Amino acid sequence: MAKSKKPSVFDPECSARDALELIASKWAILILTALADGPMRNGALLRKVGGVSQKMLTQTLRDLECNGLVARKTLQSVPPHVEYRLTPLGKSLGAALGGLDRWAERNFPRLDAARAQHLARRGSGARRGGRSQSTPTEACSRQHIALME
Amino acid sequence: MAKSKKPSVFDPECSARDALELIASKWAILILTALADGPMRNGALLRKVGGVSQKMLTQTLRDLECNGLVARKTLQSVPPHVEYRLTPLGKSLGAALGGLDRWAERNFPRLDAARAQHLARRGSGARRGGRSQSTPTEACSRQHIALME
Repeated sequence: MAKSKKPSVFDPECSARDALELIASKWAILILTALADGPMRNGALLRKVGGVSQKMLTQTLRDLECNGLVARKTLQSVPPHVEYRLTPLGKSLGAALGGLDRWAERNFPRLDAARAQHLARRGSGARRGGRSQSTPTEACSRQHIALME
Repeated sequence: MAKSKKPSVFDPECSARDALELIASKWAILILTALADGPMRNGALLRKVGGVSQKMLTQTLRDLECNGLVARKTLQSVPPHVEYRLTPLGKSLGAALGGLDRWAERNFPRLDAARAQHLARRGSGARRGGRSQSTPTEACSRQHIALME
């Protein structure tokens, strides 16, 4: 486990890459950001993180718990409830993740504009306007497939 | 495209979610971080971003270019070469991504320790030591499958 080399996320053999992989997922980022405001129960997380399935929420919470970022606590209520909270390690990620969320919320119109321009320039994607031409990666991939056909 | 609601990454219908999705991938994060040091050609990126396949590198570069984060430039050399560089929009992501990379490189031993402890407590995963018990999500998922069997 101990490495003589300096830890680097660019090295696929380094555990730092694994750590990056764990947190570089939209569900992990959204769940950790949601929990930054305080402990939450499963149902509240399901409502807050729009679009997440119960299966994906459970799996992501399990991975985050297993790696020490989230703690699971059973409340002694009737019926007993489970709540999730950030551990100190999970909290230490807060600033970095918040930075990504804020960047996305501030800059998405620039990405949308760049994508529309790019697709129009390549003579594709202009058939459907605005966001309805689906997500950034879908639109670009579809265009690529169209060009190859 | 214009929304009356405040943009939120928690809203699956908001373009801010799409923007987060584009950048919340280990390959996008690693490629954008690599390019933060200056323009690079395909071969140099392939060597720098350990473990990436040519196919995944090409696809990710295309998505980042299509969304205005990376610019592709053909150099008038013999033979002609292509280099990739960050756009000003791509550069604006730098601080947030650098924060994630540094967090991973600084904290992976804590994740490794938490995971080993968690798996040992559940009576699984202690069969194989250290990092050889594979990545954070694999180890946790394998444990979960073992518990269900």
